[in-house]
Amino acid sequence: MVFKVNILGSNSAVPTLKRQPTAQLVNHNERFYLIDCAEGTQLQLRKFKFRLQRIGHIFISHLHGDHFFGLIGLISTMHLLGRNKELHVYGPAELEEIIHLQLKVSQTELVYPFYFHAIDPDKNEVIYENDKLTISTIPLDHRIPTCGFLFREKQGKRRLIKSVVNKLDIPIDQFVKIKSGADFKDTDGRVYKNEELTMDPYPIRSYAYCSDTKYKESIVPVIKNVSLLYHEATFMQDRADVATEKFHSTTVEAATIALKAGVKQLIIGHFSTRYENPEDMLVESQSVFKNTDVAVDGCIFEVLPEPIS
Amino acid sequence: MVFKVNILGSNSAVPTLKRQPTAQLVNHNERFYLIDCAEGTQLQLRKFKFRLQRIGHIFISHLHGDHFFGLIGLISTMHLLGRNKELHVYGPAELEEIIHLQLKVSQTELVYPFYFHAIDPDKNEVIYENDKLTISTIPLDHRIPTCGFLFREKQGKRRLIKSVVNKLDIPIDQFVKIKSGADFKDTDGRVYKNEELTMDPYPIRSYAYCSDTKYKESIVPVIKNVSLLYHEATFMQDRADVATEKFHSTTVEAATIALKAGVKQLIIGHFSTRYENPEDMLVESQSVFKNTDVAVDGCIFEVLPEPIS
Repeated sequence: MVFKVNILGSNSAVPTLKRQPTAQLVNHNERFYLIDCAEGTQLQLRKFKFRLQRIGHIFISHLHGDHFFGLIGLISTMHLLGRNKELHVYGPAELEEIIHLQLKVSQTELVYPFYFHAIDPDKNEVIYENDKLTISTIPLDHRIPTCGFLFREKQGKRRLIKSVVNKLDIPIDQFVKIKSGADFKDTDGRVYKNEELTMDPYPIRSYAYCSDTKYKESIVPVIKNVSLLYHEATFMQDRADVATEKFHSTTVEAATIALKAGVKQLIIGHFSTRYENPEDMLVESQSVFKNTDVAVDGCIFEVLPEPIS
Repeated sequence: MVFKVNILGSNSAVPTLKRQPTAQLVNHNERFYLIDCAEGTQLQLRKFKFRLQRIGHIFISHLHGDHFFGLIGLISTMHLLGRNKELHVYGPAELEEIIHLQLKVSQTELVYPFYFHAIDPDKNEVIYENDKLTISTIPLDHRIPTCGFLFREKQGKRRLIKSVVNKLDIPIDQFVKIKSGADFKDTDGRVYKNEELTMDPYPIRSYAYCSDTKYKESIVPVIKNVSLLYHEATFMQDRADVATEKFHSTTVEAATIALKAGVKQLIIGHFSTRYENPEDMLVESQSVFKNTDVAVDGCIFEVLPEPIS
């Protein structure tokens, strides 16, 4: 089951010809979730060959322009291209007014069902759920109300050992029970213990998106042991004072959070435009947390299982 | 004195990787005026190497997203890059609320003086003026209130014939009078007729931007004899019914307006994404008005003097 994070934009503040501001597309089990939507995101989707109508849910972390100015354009393009499936947008309450005001002045009545879900960025709570995944908010500490998003798979059922079960005459209604841990008794009365029939479920995987925020240690229990963590690192460590003042983090702070939370892998991004070479940021972060990588527009991170806690 | 129209985006409706939606940058006498501002305009400015802080005035024709979704991003980037000079935005009244709402939610107080000027799209009136230029609104006929913009140079003063005046001992305060048509009497009492000293003023030049609109013949007197006309041509003539229904124009309709108004040159653009080859649109328009050209992102049109009426 696919679980990938596609970086559409990784810059802070302003778009440049090389790096776009923040947007990420999460593909979990062929369902597409967009996190943040800077100006130009719809073109980044085209550039990297994603079909924008496949996005069902959009999550906006906060209302700084470099995280949402592309949203109204994306919503409009979906409309102009004749979308018919539902779109769900999650974000701070004021975002709803911004969207509806712009639709109103253009006398646009969307041709598809549109649902806005106001989120409370101060709470850690589940805001979306399906049979395989939950998405919850992670309260962050930025200049305006901001939250991250935690994508966590649900524990799956035990997996059948096909070479064994195929040889047995198991009634179809028994499979669900066996996958849930039950033993099986055949018509001759022979009992097969569950561990003969099944393997452990797939290990669960999780992705935490934390941007924008200053260093906030209280998120550590929330993101404990996640498989993949994206944490903003706007500045290098020599500008730690500036970072704190502007409610942003440094490379070392992002890496420290990763280390304390015991995550498997860290991606840093949202670099200030003052830094031309992300390699320097990478080296600094790796000095604290070795398994760091850098978000670059167009790159893809596969979410691998959580480390054993 | 430079007078050029730079096409930043020429597509209708949705951005594509090849063609961006509408935005044009007018350079008149090294003053920069932006007309419309689709999503991605700030990146188009970078791509074509214009310094966005040099833009002093922005004119928004109407509130369909493909004409203004890039405005808030441009305003924000000007702020983030530390602009200090004034910015003036002209557009339908509701645009002010859209801008201020988005600044409010991000708790942004612009670091530069920002002035919004509500325009009445139903009137033909001067909305901007300096010593060399006036800009007026052109009421158009679209689904929502829309106007075009007419840039017209003021008649300059007569030009001194340097080879003559340099030989005379003319007091400095006489130059203004001579340029305004006065004769000159030297200390010996000899009179030099004005036509010995001066040439005709430069012929005036003008640019009319008409998008979006359906065929509207009543604009002809307003744009009579302009040097350069940009007129939208969303559809080819075989879809004239669709054009009218959607309040857009065809190639032939744009060319007919150009012909009736006796303009010097016509640019067509805002093509529907259904047309992959603008060459077809060009040929159709040229069959009615020969001096037609096509708006392509990145191309530049020099505004040449108005034809003699």
